[in-house]
Amino acid sequence: MPIPDDALAALRALLGPRLSTSDSERATHGASETYHRAPPPDAVAFPETTAEVSDILKICNAYRVPVMGFGTGTALEGHTLATRGGLTVSLMRMDRVLDIRAADMLAVVQPGVTREALNEELRATGLFFPVDPGANASLGGMAATRASGTTAVRYGTMRDNVLGLEAVLADGRVIRTGTRAAKSSAGYDLTGLLVGSEGTLGLITELTLRLHGQPEEVAAGVCAFPTLEAAVECVTATIQSGIPMARIEFVDAAAARAFNQTSGLSLPDLPHLMVEFHGSPASVAADAVAFGALVEEFGGLGFDWATTPDDRARLWRMRHGAYRACLKLRPGATAVVTDVCVPMSELPAAVSAAAADIAAEGLLGPMVGHVGDGNFHAQLLVEPGNDAELAAAKRIATRMAERAIAIGGTITGEHGFGIGKRPLMAAQHGEAWQVMGAIKAALDPNGILNPGKLVPDMN
Amino acid sequence: MPIPDDALAALRALLGPRLSTSDSERATHGASETYHRAPPPDAVAFPETTAEVSDILKICNAYRVPVMGFGTGTALEGHTLATRGGLTVSLMRMDRVLDIRAADMLAVVQPGVTREALNEELRATGLFFPVDPGANASLGGMAATRASGTTAVRYGTMRDNVLGLEAVLADGRVIRTGTRAAKSSAGYDLTGLLVGSEGTLGLITELTLRLHGQPEEVAAGVCAFPTLEAAVECVTATIQSGIPMARIEFVDAAAARAFNQTSGLSLPDLPHLMVEFHGSPASVAADAVAFGALVEEFGGLGFDWATTPDDRARLWRMRHGAYRACLKLRPGATAVVTDVCVPMSELPAAVSAAAADIAAEGLLGPMVGHVGDGNFHAQLLVEPGNDAELAAAKRIATRMAERAIAIGGTITGEHGFGIGKRPLMAAQHGEAWQVMGAIKAALDPNGILNPGKLVPDMN
Repeated sequence: MPIPDDALAALRALLGPRLSTSDSERATHGASETYHRAPPPDAVAFPETTAEVSDILKICNAYRVPVMGFGTGTALEGHTLATRGGLTVSLMRMDRVLDIRAADMLAVVQPGVTREALNEELRATGLFFPVDPGANASLGGMAATRASGTTAVRYGTMRDNVLGLEAVLADGRVIRTGTRAAKSSAGYDLTGLLVGSEGTLGLITELTLRLHGQPEEVAAGVCAFPTLEAAVECVTATIQSGIPMARIEFVDAAAARAFNQTSGLSLPDLPHLMVEFHGSPASVAADAVAFGALVEEFGGLGFDWATTPDDRARLWRMRHGAYRACLKLRPGATAVVTDVCVPMSELPAAVSAAAADIAAEGLLGPMVGHVGDGNFHAQLLVEPGNDAELAAAKRIATRMAERAIAIGGTITGEHGFGIGKRPLMAAQHGEAWQVMGAIKAALDPNGILNPGKLVPDMN
Repeated sequence: MPIPDDALAALRALLGPRLSTSDSERATHGASETYHRAPPPDAVAFPETTAEVSDILKICNAYRVPVMGFGTGTALEGHTLATRGGLTVSLMRMDRVLDIRAADMLAVVQPGVTREALNEELRATGLFFPVDPGANASLGGMAATRASGTTAVRYGTMRDNVLGLEAVLADGRVIRTGTRAAKSSAGYDLTGLLVGSEGTLGLITELTLRLHGQPEEVAAGVCAFPTLEAAVECVTATIQSGIPMARIEFVDAAAARAFNQTSGLSLPDLPHLMVEFHGSPASVAADAVAFGALVEEFGGLGFDWATTPDDRARLWRMRHGAYRACLKLRPGATAVVTDVCVPMSELPAAVSAAAADIAAEGLLGPMVGHVGDGNFHAQLLVEPGNDAELAAAKRIATRMAERAIAIGGTITGEHGFGIGKRPLMAAQHGEAWQVMGAIKAALDPNGILNPGKLVPDMN
């Protein structure tokens, strides 16, 4: 359904040239990183203040216009796609760091600030914001998706690092949630409800974020293992032993090949672990020794330490580039990306079963994972337009998801549902999915916020 | 409104002798630890299974009977009081530890298991459940109140340590939330919504809890400071320096006197900090040295270390007994207990201002606090029935709360709202309080679950 003329006129009166109906803006804001496709939105808005976001939503709510929030466009499950048309609201012009309170270890930012931009501003304070999904995503988008990434094993996810929010509800009301205190038992945790709500309950217009001290000492390295099983079992043993890993990432042999191809490395054609330790010089040394003993026990082939900050930056840039690097293993391919997260004791079996599934379907599907949380991804490479391959990839993804549910895990550790995982919501949540729908209906009775996503269809 | 006869008959048919209308059970389940008072409930139910809880709620929902969940009765703000009559549901017969998965560092328990009972069962596993509100509360009640306590500075609150729940909604539907994985981005965080909902959204019938490794080494001690300001400023400096405190508790001079009186100690008549360190022998030693340097900087009067496990147990038993010990400072008194939590940089000024308020009103009001989180309590001792004293205590509490809100803090760090803090909800949350009401109305349209608590009154 196109945006009614009266609504468009009202939006244009509000935003002037910051409302665009150009083909190029619509295409840019209607695209997806992965295989998901939908028609572009009918228009794109670029508000600069919370008051403008509120006015936009009042207009859209009055005319029943679907509204999708948009940040850097790096979501992997089609979260921001305009599957029912409507208005995409880019929050990227709201990109100011409003306050850094070093003494309270928190920062107040607008939603369009990216994590790298925030950390750049924090550099001189001795503090940093740790959540690191790889992409240089906007912090508003990261909150909306409940992002996590490589450092969650140590510092937690967005759920743990968002202290409070300002958000605009479907009817334009502006609410503030949370406080600047370290904890609170003051009623329902609306901050936690909005984090991970994928734009279906409100648009986030401000975030209060928890900061952490920059570690005095950092050590990072990479190590090959003879088999996938050995690498993953080493992870499980490491986590169970309580070594405080700052990062512990799994990279399978195919992903290692992709790194070699794009980064000019010569990693052996084997599974690897990439790790990082944070702490005092003494604690980092002790952690590295303890981890080294486990690596040896599981047959690891010796550590390659990244000794300088530049070496470490290169290592993690490579890891962060995994998605694009792996795409190049099959030129022209698009990807179905899986995202299960399982209890630690189930991780080795779950990774092995996924590898067997991928092999059985004959697809190329490199695997990487934030395995310290039990979270891993297969990036299933398919030829665009090849329905048989897409069906095979979806079979693999579905089997991985069903297996995760069966062993008490989740079908999405950090990517969220978008449109890609919606068919599995009922299996994951049972009756609780209907409860999510009831909450959505209470806060957005006209269903204008990111319709067709996350909750069951209304009516 | 009394329970209709038909409802009572249906409940009796379901529960037999496990439905009580005796005066003694009603009184026991209608009492409060603090100054709050209400008539007892009309009846008390003792279900033993989730199915029974579901059937109870179906009956009560059909007949619009108010339902209050009840654990150990240690809530401090009258959460469980039957202010509108109805049925109190004790969950204390659902007291089994269902599963301990040491390899996944989690336990599955029924809501009537107390934290001490769980830790007793965990003793041989090398794991423990850290959340420690002082009282040996039920874990279901701790989740419902979003409890925290002395160890939250290190291990987080119930929000951080509940991975998943089973809950029964107002209409008897049973839902499961969360998973056994370390993280998830699978839709709305219903676990987080139920934790801290104070029995207004559902009754918790099962909890999946995150466990932690028992520390290899523990050191604890107590230290006096010349002034309240010096003690609190030392806390702020300690937290800002990043020393990983396991516990850091403030005790003012009046509370120290109460400890002396009940525990036979001879603490100086001064403010104190009680601290604990967890880690390896080397890290604990390093942390203690770093903290000791700060203590010296702020004029601390030398450390008294609790060197044996028995000494430590005695120290924390004394701290946990603070509420009852302080009551004895004024025989026959009841208490108005405050619970603000403020940003760390604001803590010294907030504690000083509270002390000045208490002195100005001429009440006895010992203060203790989990100050590593910025959370502190005044226990304002009033004579039962003395309206002038109660009014003075409430003036102090209101000023503390308003000051907390003004500086970005919360009016309740861990006790929750109950009936005591409800008048301040609008000031704390603004429009967001209405959003809480909308969620409540969506999940409990008849308003039977703990009516008159937490959310705005419906209609």
